[in-house]
Amino acid sequence: MGGNCFGRAFRVITFGESHGAAVGCVVDGCPAGLSLDVDTVRRDLDRRRPGGGGVSTTRREADEPEILSGIFDGRTLGTPIAIVIRNTAQLPRDYDKLKDVYRPGHADMVWEVKYGLRDHRGGGRSSARETAARVAAGAVARAFLTENGVSVRAWTQAVAGIEAPEPDSDDFDLYEAERNAFRVPCRRTADMITERIEELRGAGESAGGIVECRVQGLPAGLGEPVFDKLDALLAQAVMSLGAVKGVEFGAGFKASRLSGSKNNDRPLPGGGPPGSTGFIAYSGNNAGGILGGISNGAELVFRAAFKPVPSIAKKQLTIDRLGREIELEVHGRHDVCVCPRAVPVVEAMTALVLADLTLRRRTDQLAAGIP
Amino acid sequence: MGGNCFGRAFRVITFGESHGAAVGCVVDGCPAGLSLDVDTVRRDLDRRRPGGGGVSTTRREADEPEILSGIFDGRTLGTPIAIVIRNTAQLPRDYDKLKDVYRPGHADMVWEVKYGLRDHRGGGRSSARETAARVAAGAVARAFLTENGVSVRAWTQAVAGIEAPEPDSDDFDLYEAERNAFRVPCRRTADMITERIEELRGAGESAGGIVECRVQGLPAGLGEPVFDKLDALLAQAVMSLGAVKGVEFGAGFKASRLSGSKNNDRPLPGGGPPGSTGFIAYSGNNAGGILGGISNGAELVFRAAFKPVPSIAKKQLTIDRLGREIELEVHGRHDVCVCPRAVPVVEAMTALVLADLTLRRRTDQLAAGIP
Amino acid sequence: MGGNCFGRAFRVITFGESHGAAVGCVVDGCPAGLSLDVDTVRRDLDRRRPGGGGVSTTRREADEPEILSGIFDGRTLGTPIAIVIRNTAQLPRDYDKLKDVYRPGHADMVWEVKYGLRDHRGGGRSSARETAARVAAGAVARAFLTENGVSVRAWTQAVAGIEAPEPDSDDFDLYEAERNAFRVPCRRTADMITERIEELRGAGESAGGIVECRVQGLPAGLGEPVFDKLDALLAQAVMSLGAVKGVEFGAGFKASRLSGSKNNDRPLPGGGPPGSTGFIAYSGNNAGGILGGISNGAELVFRAAFKPVPSIAKKQLTIDRLGREIELEVHGRHDVCVCPRAVPVVEAMTALVLADLTLRRRTDQLAAGIP
Amino acid sequence: MGGNCFGRAFRVITFGESHGAAVGCVVDGCPAGLSLDVDTVRRDLDRRRPGGGGVSTTRREADEPEILSGIFDGRTLGTPIAIVIRNTAQLPRDYDKLKDVYRPGHADMVWEVKYGLRDHRGGGRSSARETAARVAAGAVARAFLTENGVSVRAWTQAVAGIEAPEPDSDDFDLYEAERNAFRVPCRRTADMITERIEELRGAGESAGGIVECRVQGLPAGLGEPVFDKLDALLAQAVMSLGAVKGVEFGAGFKASRLSGSKNNDRPLPGGGPPGSTGFIAYSGNNAGGILGGISNGAELVFRAAFKPVPSIAKKQLTIDRLGREIELEVHGRHDVCVCPRAVPVVEAMTALVLADLTLRRRTDQLAAGIP
Repeated sequence: MGGNCFGRAFRVITFGESHGAAVGCVVDGCPAGLSLDVDTVRRDLDRRRPGGGGVSTTRREADEPEILSGIFDGRTLGTPIAIVIRNTAQLPRDYDKLKDVYRPGHADMVWEVKYGLRDHRGGGRSSARETAARVAAGAVARAFLTENGVSVRAWTQAVAGIEAPEPDSDDFDLYEAERNAFRVPCRRTADMITERIEELRGAGESAGGIVECRVQGLPAGLGEPVFDKLDALLAQAVMSLGAVKGVEFGAGFKASRLSGSKNNDRPLPGGGPPGSTGFIAYSGNNAGGILGGISNGAELVFRAAFKPVPSIAKKQLTIDRLGREIELEVHGRHDVCVCPRAVPVVEAMTALVLADLTLRRRTDQLAAGIP
Repeated sequence: MGGNCFGRAFRVITFGESHGAAVGCVVDGCPAGLSLDVDTVRRDLDRRRPGGGGVSTTRREADEPEILSGIFDGRTLGTPIAIVIRNTAQLPRDYDKLKDVYRPGHADMVWEVKYGLRDHRGGGRSSARETAARVAAGAVARAFLTENGVSVRAWTQAVAGIEAPEPDSDDFDLYEAERNAFRVPCRRTADMITERIEELRGAGESAGGIVECRVQGLPAGLGEPVFDKLDALLAQAVMSLGAVKGVEFGAGFKASRLSGSKNNDRPLPGGGPPGSTGFIAYSGNNAGGILGGISNGAELVFRAAFKPVPSIAKKQLTIDRLGREIELEVHGRHDVCVCPRAVPVVEAMTALVLADLTLRRRTDQLAAGIP
Repeated sequence: MGGNCFGRAFRVITFGESHGAAVGCVVDGCPAGLSLDVDTVRRDLDRRRPGGGGVSTTRREADEPEILSGIFDGRTLGTPIAIVIRNTAQLPRDYDKLKDVYRPGHADMVWEVKYGLRDHRGGGRSSARETAARVAAGAVARAFLTENGVSVRAWTQAVAGIEAPEPDSDDFDLYEAERNAFRVPCRRTADMITERIEELRGAGESAGGIVECRVQGLPAGLGEPVFDKLDALLAQAVMSLGAVKGVEFGAGFKASRLSGSKNNDRPLPGGGPPGSTGFIAYSGNNAGGILGGISNGAELVFRAAFKPVPSIAKKQLTIDRLGREIELEVHGRHDVCVCPRAVPVVEAMTALVLADLTLRRRTDQLAAGIP
Repeated sequence: MGGNCFGRAFRVITFGESHGAAVGCVVDGCPAGLSLDVDTVRRDLDRRRPGGGGVSTTRREADEPEILSGIFDGRTLGTPIAIVIRNTAQLPRDYDKLKDVYRPGHADMVWEVKYGLRDHRGGGRSSARETAARVAAGAVARAFLTENGVSVRAWTQAVAGIEAPEPDSDDFDLYEAERNAFRVPCRRTADMITERIEELRGAGESAGGIVECRVQGLPAGLGEPVFDKLDALLAQAVMSLGAVKGVEFGAGFKASRLSGSKNNDRPLPGGGPPGSTGFIAYSGNNAGGILGGISNGAELVFRAAFKPVPSIAKKQLTIDRLGREIELEVHGRHDVCVCPRAVPVVEAMTALVLADLTLRRRTDQLAAGIP
């Protein structure tokens, strides 16, 4: 039973196979009256495109979005917003030889077990191509959040074990993240990563990495216990990206080694009664901005671990559809590391969760007498 | 807007505040004809109760489940199964002094911001007490999985940074996990942890830890891309536990540092055509049993990081409802480490996800001609 | 796959078989801060109980509701509200002889086909007993609507073809509806109906009827096109009552015979710009208060047709589980006409739909700049 | 909060305004392996187009569907099926004068109240144009049902109070229904209707009517009590069509006037144990094929009442956006009666409900041991 819908109040469905006619999305539940045009969507899609520097696939998708509905005179109508992005760079021939082979680390085999057939032309729905539709939907969510003063930013925190400085370090530079090919917020780290990636490429290898995401301007009170907590929905959203193998909030796994007094963030005096001013300050942010699954007014902080790209040039042993061992060499256009292109996708998924919970919060406030 | 429902085909809603009349759950969508009685539910609830050894709260809840509906002559009717667990150990007096205080690391303040009021008698829905309802629902899901040959097991892999041996080590002993107070699968590690916990208790401190969960007997094909992937729903399920700050599958965060050829698990020959035999073997399990969000026939493996219990005896600075700094000493019955009691809750949440996806998979198989 | 949940923002699940331990409901999504106590719920449940006058079953259920969660100090917490009503009048012996018989007009056979087994002790979930849980949930919805100035009223408009005067008639008296056993808003009609019912009872027969429902104070703008229109959700809600075979809004089936100019309700001048004052007047109400699936500010009007009670004393031919023809005489406690007891259930279902759409409308108003 | 999704297992979302770029749908949850191509969709869309005979609008839409995803080599992939139908006949100029006017019987005013703005170019989402997307989605559902031996047929049973013979009459001819402009299953009735419609057209008037729908081949057991009963979901589905004001099943409103023994359909002997053969026979079909909200193996029968088209040539009084009375003459291309074009839409909505419940039933059968 299909799992292509996400969100309850701000709801999105995505569609499209990597080598079909198009990918796209429909957003249902976006409030009316919001300023939105195709340029906003295109801008976010462009960030997802190959950025150069040798990290990215050489496949050049046009990624030209068309908004089919839901917008009139530059404003949302309150009706479903459908966005289509045609697949232009289809070269199905590249994939023909993969028809009867199960690539290691790919969903080929499980997809076939599940559905009895698959579109072998490039991953179908399990291709990264599908994430273009998420970015388009995320652009709508972002436009909504921007009007509410919320800003979502992600970057590559580590590649192949090489880590960028922490955000509170002097060497951390968020502007730099948009200037280098890896979206790493530090020029020196980016250089080290470039060097390491070239080595790996030469060896027919690939790399994983870590993407960090932070959200500023988020009011306290977002999240719907007990199952739709802010961190629970973000975890689902981020883990639904094919290459993600782990997610952590605030101090994350490190928190499991701290003592209680070290890990607790103390609320600081002088913030005034919460709710009245919205200003809440803490002695630290091990919580990553979330307490009991609800935003606490501090910066939202989480990290996602991406596995290395499974498609590598190096020869690998695997099996074919008859269960026979074969040697596989995957050529074609593949990223060595998925992180830089994953950055806008992580932002998009985060925006979708926050837009949904912002709308859902409105009903909490109804009888509580909160305007 | 309430977030107390979980699942789409096998759906559960939980209710109840920690110091109200009862906690409980309703399961909708459980197939008819399944063997189930109140003993099955009680058994799982008993595993969640304080186990002794000084780790647990001294609060003794009876946790006597009553099944109100959905069962007739020891079998499920296909109708909603309602289970109620009365709260017997209510001592609201203990909490009165917390009425105007925001405890560090707790959801007190955000809950009040969100709802305009809160039940200060012990955490309300953000109390661990709420998880008794999850365990009851999980018992129903487990009964369903057991009939399908699926077994879910979790244990405490680490406490306060002290780690148990890996499951493939000779020192790993799963039977031991049910014998010691920390549910650690190694006697020697359990002893070290006991010592460390006593030190922390003496200092008025608390500890975090890591719970690992493994599932055997899971067929390939479970998981509904693109948003309801197996790992995505498990991440939501596990992250919806209040104290969890991170979750990872298979190699998890470590995968982000591996090269592609090291991380890829190769399908091994001789397994026969997938689907026909259901037998699929891999060279390793960095994937944790999941590819592209779909179970791949290997063991399902994930870990959750729990933060230290925020309620500590040690004095802490915090603020009251007027934003004034105050010094807080929390007495009362609190676990030093939540992991051992979290083990059956992690199992329950896992069972709920797997039951839901098993039912949902039935519709995938309909036209695909898979019996 | 279970269909026991209703609503999206204001969501309810009901549980319980007629001869099990209890029936009940859980309401998720009710805003915090609403005044609510057990008396409010009991009051609505009492209206559903047998009212005397010979129309009702002689079974006397205590219908004592217990609120298990979601309320603290007389106000809703924003958490799920669980309400349980114990089944006290269980006489399963009455039903034993029905174990192998399929009663005409009952769901016995289809239930068995569907679930492979059934609780033959009295209809299980298809019993009218289940509606007690709906009334309890509806009481919560009603409390919410009352605070918003919305009032829901239903009555018996016809029994066995004998119709009460239209609401705009001088003979229509809504107070009378709560004074006679049939809930008919006209004493004279009630007398005629009483006479006819006694005849039918003497003949071992039963009767159907029509319940009309009207809602006052409903603001314009409720309803979520295109599938969750106000009339669409009300139709689902009302048709989900076992005995309902038809539903119509405003002029209803009669509208299919009118010409366009006769059927159109003209908006009248002087109402001021809509939205600014909320005052909208029309030349008539053939629309029943709904245009394009959205409330138009006029009174909401609909009618539901109830089939005659299928359990009759008169001998009937039917078949048993082996397909053999048998003669059946159903004794026991059955209403001759279900309408008077259905009145509060129709009100409850209407309240649930309106509460849900009121909350959902909040998100429409967010970006539209409507406070 | 958007209401543009329908269904739980077989889920559809529709999008598109009448004068925007396109209308369309995405179907999520359709099983893999089903034969489907664009011709199947086009065939159903063609039935929705103007049929001649003077009843229909003169607006000629191309209604050329494009399938963007979910199909590969003529079979469904199990992934979302997106279908887009471009709007080609846009003449927004026609509507400019309606910018500040509220048409009687239209949703203009409520739409503006609800969303704060509207697309005045022709009804937006409340236009009949939106139903093209439903028909496209319905074509997918129909293909699924056809493989399961289920056939859905609707026709015009009455127009302007002129009724066609009942289906059991000798004068009833279902082939005729596809030959005349009104889709009436009787030539003589069609002629009478034609005459009456021409009179109404001459007078600048419009007409309503009744569409009847019957389903053959439906197995017993479909429908998910208590809220997602077969009749409840069909009522929502059909009532979600803008012009429908009433819906009734089997004997419908007439059943409210029958006695119990007259209304009960008796199961007939010789049908064999239900479930084993699937053959169930009844003495009549007042139930319309539904008992307790579950299909009973008999023919499914229901009727929907359509109001007259609100756009009439005749002068009408109404108000403008400032609340001033004005005289309105609506020119342009409007049907005199919506029924013939509504027939395929009723079929589509019925197919969507049946496909959803067929998939949901699969999970009921899981533990019940029904293959």
